[in-house]
Amino acid sequence: MKTIFDHRSVRRYTDRHIDDQVMERILTAATRASTVGNMQLYSLVVTTARDLLDKLSPLHFGQIASMGAPVAVTVCCDVNRFSRWCRASQTEPSYDNMLWFVNGAIDALLAAQNMILEAEHHGLGACVLGTTLYNATEICDLLSLPQGVVPVTTVVLGYPADTPPLTERLPLEAVVHRDTYRDYEDDDVKRLWAEKEALDYVKELVRENGTRNLAEIFTTKRYPAKDSVFFTEKYMETLKRQGFLK
Amino acid sequence: MKTIFDHRSVRRYTDRHIDDQVMERILTAATRASTVGNMQLYSLVVTTARDLLDKLSPLHFGQIASMGAPVAVTVCCDVNRFSRWCRASQTEPSYDNMLWFVNGAIDALLAAQNMILEAEHHGLGACVLGTTLYNATEICDLLSLPQGVVPVTTVVLGYPADTPPLTERLPLEAVVHRDTYRDYEDDDVKRLWAEKEALDYVKELVRENGTRNLAEIFTTKRYPAKDSVFFTEKYMETLKRQGFLK
Repeated sequence: MKTIFDHRSVRRYTDRHIDDQVMERILTAATRASTVGNMQLYSLVVTTARDLLDKLSPLHFGQIASMGAPVAVTVCCDVNRFSRWCRASQTEPSYDNMLWFVNGAIDALLAAQNMILEAEHHGLGACVLGTTLYNATEICDLLSLPQGVVPVTTVVLGYPADTPPLTERLPLEAVVHRDTYRDYEDDDVKRLWAEKEALDYVKELVRENGTRNLAEIFTTKRYPAKDSVFFTEKYMETLKRQGFLK
Repeated sequence: MKTIFDHRSVRRYTDRHIDDQVMERILTAATRASTVGNMQLYSLVVTTARDLLDKLSPLHFGQIASMGAPVAVTVCCDVNRFSRWCRASQTEPSYDNMLWFVNGAIDALLAAQNMILEAEHHGLGACVLGTTLYNATEICDLLSLPQGVVPVTTVVLGYPADTPPLTERLPLEAVVHRDTYRDYEDDDVKRLWAEKEALDYVKELVRENGTRNLAEIFTTKRYPAKDSVFFTEKYMETLKRQGFLK
């Protein structure tokens, strides 16, 4: 499907307004994804107010502002709405744990990918902000997310100011296993990453970062151990505060 | 996009073979989804061998067999491949925690939705098996998933034997929040679920189950508290065993 194969993360947007009907179509597309037991355990917080975007952006390390994105959709696992409906129906729900966090995250992310593709189908661009996990508590506060709701990812949307090239991927055989998982030997991973490591821009990146190789950029610069530990504790605290973890 | 709006969960398949080139296109579509830092923290275990499907099916409470699905794709969060590449590059990775479980799950699920839509675009049907979380440990054993890999969901694929009707969803306003989250009052949830609860098949379900209302089917029959607690502990154990939780 052309839209799927044309996907790129857009990181510069124009100030062109997104028509309400187009936005409604994009959000409706999200709701057509499969959802556990048809419970729709997610919420889409669609932020467009300038003052809120200005407060949200620093929580994503400035990305929303630097991209000039007019819309940020905070994609949340949400067992609150369903639980409130259960209580309003005089029956007690029990979805305040990690199983239901993962169920809600599954719902939220399948919906998010539909939203991205429908947006692209209408000529918009999108970018997924992984930074959502780093400052989830602060995002909860800013967006008034109650117990039973936790942000999983954020998708910014808008009309692209440019069309970046497609991003390279590992060969298909790297991620696909036939029947059962076959683990990787050193030779396998070296071969699977060889093409990527030979790219000019990757070689330039390694030079700029002063590392021995590409992997070391990830382990020492982009995702070092101390951040990994720190942000795990922080997100676990958020899960606890939002009612998914005792 | 027509494919998105035509999605339904297909639960009966014909024995028509899926052409290798079509399957390759579907799996390649998965890899075009956004992925954290372009790390591709997921694996797709594509099971087609009859004996393995027969062993996998009971772990999904018989669903694969009863649907006659020729393919089950176990969609996994995978930090193992990336970590092995780091080590083969003489640098130490640190992705053995919950932050990276969630990062990997995000990657895996965005990829999964692409896979589903590309399959449907080629005339196939798909069904997402939420049961993956219930027997994740057993699935790890059967599919030889090593440390750093954990199943998040399963997508069965095949040519549909029938075309089920579209599933109803809550009104769009139920899941969309403007700028910030506005919490729900009893009246809100009653209104949002009113249309669903008035459907003939829902009334019939309530009669069959002998419950007072639809919500009670969820809280007492489909997803009761004891299962919620039991399967949370079980999945947390799996996360621990696979190296994501201390």
